[in-house]
Amino acid sequence: MLSSAPDPSDKALVPFVSVANMMRLVHHLGLDAVIRSLTGHIEEDFRRWERFDKTPRVASHSPVGVIELMPTSDGEAYGFKYVNGHPRNTRAGLQTVTAFGLLADVATGYPVLLTEMTLLTALRTAAMSALAARHLAPEGARTMAMIGNGAQAEFQSRAMQALVGIDTVRLWDIDGAATEKCARNLAGSGLAIVRCTSAQDAVEGADIITTCTADKQYATILSDNMVGAGVHINAIGGDCPGKTELAPAILGRASIFVEYPEQTRIEGEIQQLDPDHPVTELWQVFAGAAPGRRSASEITLFDSVGFAIEDFSALRFVQQAIRGTPFFEPLDLLADPDDPRDLYGMLARAGGAAAA
Amino acid sequence: MLSSAPDPSDKALVPFVSVANMMRLVHHLGLDAVIRSLTGHIEEDFRRWERFDKTPRVASHSPVGVIELMPTSDGEAYGFKYVNGHPRNTRAGLQTVTAFGLLADVATGYPVLLTEMTLLTALRTAAMSALAARHLAPEGARTMAMIGNGAQAEFQSRAMQALVGIDTVRLWDIDGAATEKCARNLAGSGLAIVRCTSAQDAVEGADIITTCTADKQYATILSDNMVGAGVHINAIGGDCPGKTELAPAILGRASIFVEYPEQTRIEGEIQQLDPDHPVTELWQVFAGAAPGRRSASEITLFDSVGFAIEDFSALRFVQQAIRGTPFFEPLDLLADPDDPRDLYGMLARAGGAAAA
Repeated sequence: MLSSAPDPSDKALVPFVSVANMMRLVHHLGLDAVIRSLTGHIEEDFRRWERFDKTPRVASHSPVGVIELMPTSDGEAYGFKYVNGHPRNTRAGLQTVTAFGLLADVATGYPVLLTEMTLLTALRTAAMSALAARHLAPEGARTMAMIGNGAQAEFQSRAMQALVGIDTVRLWDIDGAATEKCARNLAGSGLAIVRCTSAQDAVEGADIITTCTADKQYATILSDNMVGAGVHINAIGGDCPGKTELAPAILGRASIFVEYPEQTRIEGEIQQLDPDHPVTELWQVFAGAAPGRRSASEITLFDSVGFAIEDFSALRFVQQAIRGTPFFEPLDLLADPDDPRDLYGMLARAGGAAAA
Repeated sequence: MLSSAPDPSDKALVPFVSVANMMRLVHHLGLDAVIRSLTGHIEEDFRRWERFDKTPRVASHSPVGVIELMPTSDGEAYGFKYVNGHPRNTRAGLQTVTAFGLLADVATGYPVLLTEMTLLTALRTAAMSALAARHLAPEGARTMAMIGNGAQAEFQSRAMQALVGIDTVRLWDIDGAATEKCARNLAGSGLAIVRCTSAQDAVEGADIITTCTADKQYATILSDNMVGAGVHINAIGGDCPGKTELAPAILGRASIFVEYPEQTRIEGEIQQLDPDHPVTELWQVFAGAAPGRRSASEITLFDSVGFAIEDFSALRFVQQAIRGTPFFEPLDLLADPDDPRDLYGMLARAGGAAAA
């Protein structure tokens, strides 16, 4: 940073976690520990679900994508995430999804953390999937089919390994290069990697089926005959209106678990169902108010779309995790005059100092 | 910034304007030039009013204040402002209002500017007032009553001087220390300063009356008898439900001009009136589709509450103004792997680089 006169006070400085520092933080703590800590924060926040202000996300749509603001608050802290979704960005060498987030103190309105959230969203999405699977996957689940081997695939695999005990992933993607990338990245993780020849091949013997494909259209990644009794489906890819991955018949056979029904009925797989089709809210499962998996033969489905409280939990995780570490920079984001009414004087004196 | 390996690419770096750099930018350009340029951007954007996505602000209320996100887009750029309002913050030596903002590219969803907006909001609010006054104040206006001498007072005075040609300000505040602060800051500005003994005293001979007080309650800063024919009232302070400054009778005698009626009827002075009381939208005045001041005796009122498009204009101003200057830092806010699908690989390689 350029030196400045006068220096901003502590109140004016907001800790900022860059992408480089987020990567350092993850390596410092270890990916397994990050996933477990994220999971702990998410479970804790979901258990006090009713304390949260559940504002719908604010979306600005354009023909090529969407920009969203996802705010929430528990009455003490306020968090929001900025996130875009631009499916065609990869053609220009850009991420389809980038994100950053902010945590603020409700009592003063002052921001207390600004952080990259592209990596953090990938981590919290995987942590949320693993947390749901811990409550819903069949006892002793060891094999996961990973259908769609894009940016989220390794995170999902590693989170399921860390939290559920998966030891084998069966990879499939219509793009073989994506599967190779995924297999290469997971080499050395301790997971056995099986490259499959089709989605049908991938689900063979799988206890958990994770779907995470990117098509922005009604697609059938899983057809009805591919899903046997006792399987847990972790459906990540269907996450906006018009984008689904599962054949409707699967939904009819499964016990469906969601984050926030109001949002999932618009964005998730269940947009294909009647608006009164029964679903279970995961916060009730985590809180012990509703059952998770009830039998070995039940088909369970986590219809994941991503919810603001998960981002809030992730922001709280980062706020705590960076304490005492060098993995953040103080950012001069807030004007902080000695006299709060003297903003103009602060500006004028800075000019004098600059001229001096 | 800490050095990192691998270095983020240009696509991942977002220009950030800190408070210190915003102050440098203002001194580099000069306050008058900043006000004029802001005014130009606001007028240009208001003239193409119908191209904007006018989402209502998203407010998160608590017993002590509010945190708001104010997004808007013209289809090419997307901007939002984070702003809090905590009236009791001054007791703890904090600003009642702090803000920052972001501009993004609608085509990719990538942020292109992050900037402090506490100072910038003070500047754009003053620019908006001066722009409205240029269309509404009486011909040859030279004297302004400035009632409420808090953080916004000097900015209002300087903007009216720069854009409307005011040469005298008559100051009044219930707190004499605020008036002294304001008078001290305006010494050397070229404005003649008159310290007044009451609001009634302040409006004596004024062509423009600016009210900018901070009470969060229905208050009567201006009573009916204080407002004579031909005056322009610039009402800044009434900007949320339950907070007004003017006696209702004044509203009945004035031609009322507003930014966005849907918002002003909730937050502005006109919350005191019937919901169908006629008002004129300023964008129509700027575009030549509606008249501004129509006679020398007319009382005009700008019922200012602040609108997202003004922040958008201010963000565009900063984006252009910092080009070729050293008044910003590149912020590593966005993950940018070589292969957009290889977020995990980017993370893994950063670990290898850190270990090496």
